[in-house]
Amino acid sequence: MKEAVVLVSGGLDSATMLALARKQGFSCHALSFQYGQRHAAELEAACRVTSLYGAIEHRLISIDLGQIGGSALTDQSIAIPEIPQEGIPVTYVPARNTVFLAIALGWAEVLGARDIFIGVNAVDYSGYPDCRPEFIQAFEQLAKLATRAGVEGTPFSIHAPLLHLSKAEIIRLGVGLGIDYAQTVSCYQADGAGRACGHCDACRLRTQGFSEAGVVDPTKYQC
Amino acid sequence: MKEAVVLVSGGLDSATMLALARKQGFSCHALSFQYGQRHAAELEAACRVTSLYGAIEHRLISIDLGQIGGSALTDQSIAIPEIPQEGIPVTYVPARNTVFLAIALGWAEVLGARDIFIGVNAVDYSGYPDCRPEFIQAFEQLAKLATRAGVEGTPFSIHAPLLHLSKAEIIRLGVGLGIDYAQTVSCYQADGAGRACGHCDACRLRTQGFSEAGVVDPTKYQC
Repeated sequence: MKEAVVLVSGGLDSATMLALARKQGFSCHALSFQYGQRHAAELEAACRVTSLYGAIEHRLISIDLGQIGGSALTDQSIAIPEIPQEGIPVTYVPARNTVFLAIALGWAEVLGARDIFIGVNAVDYSGYPDCRPEFIQAFEQLAKLATRAGVEGTPFSIHAPLLHLSKAEIIRLGVGLGIDYAQTVSCYQADGAGRACGHCDACRLRTQGFSEAGVVDPTKYQC
Repeated sequence: MKEAVVLVSGGLDSATMLALARKQGFSCHALSFQYGQRHAAELEAACRVTSLYGAIEHRLISIDLGQIGGSALTDQSIAIPEIPQEGIPVTYVPARNTVFLAIALGWAEVLGARDIFIGVNAVDYSGYPDCRPEFIQAFEQLAKLATRAGVEGTPFSIHAPLLHLSKAEIIRLGVGLGIDYAQTVSCYQADGAGRACGHCDACRLRTQGFSEAGVVDPTKYQC
């Protein structure tokens, strides 16, 4: 069975991707980050998801991107917008996916894995630059040059299997894989019980996705 | 004055580079990492160096690469080799420079800086893949695609001004810039007082560099 490192946030996309990677026959080492995000509910969801959907281990790495700030997700003084914004929104965390993939790359190299999964999506998304196909391709190219494995001719594959799917398609895929989306948390400002605000961009995309998929939304909302 | 993020480890190379970046007119935001390395002497040196050579601020970010391991620098159970090894040595930390540059990229974007300095060298070095020019070029390309700045047409420059210099040339450059190398620590296994072992690869390259430069080696050794 091939080994893979799978980035798991606790949200809808990465839960679906983990189940998909397992179905594709990968032995999945799940990786999550305590990076200074606003709430712990997401990481609690990541723990549930990795256990429910067959990761063989789950590692949580702390890195305080709040020291850098510059995003509504890591700086509590910047409000989470509740209406869609023009351009790249303030919830964009500078270089977040580059940091996450870099650490995943290091762990994959130590494990001897050559496959890394990231649940980015460039259809129903918030316009973050590090969710686009050209970013994923550039990271795969970098990974060849950054590592012993690349030098030795066994390069890494960066898998982004949700990249070109709509949110509704992701949800239908996940339902087919047996995902219970009540276990996942997508909201940027979930409360202590993991209940979603229903207003932020992440909630908006998720709610629309369930609606378009014709699937009952199991999300617990704050009101 | 242009703003730059400058990676400072506390070693000889990054101290030289910081002084060089200052001389080139950059306003330098220094960045160091507590990443699970074997000793604190390097970071104490980083604090001295950033203060002595004109950084306008110094930020220290913790990220425990020891959770990933796979290197003699982050896993105490792997011995530091005291004779040169064939190929990439066990002191290679998987994806370390990718992780460091990724975080530097995030901070640069928040600061509005478009210049990042890293003190890698591909002449008198240990053969780490992420110290080579092709790695630096690939990261610069990635940075264009990973960020808001890149999307908006103001991409980042990754400066590696020591890339093609020998260790002796770096030391001569630093002496000309007024660097006191007694303030720097290069050794992989320095003791609590910052004294070098004299045997590891980092010590070997440093000692040879002073010798070839015809500069008295001010390093404090353990014996």
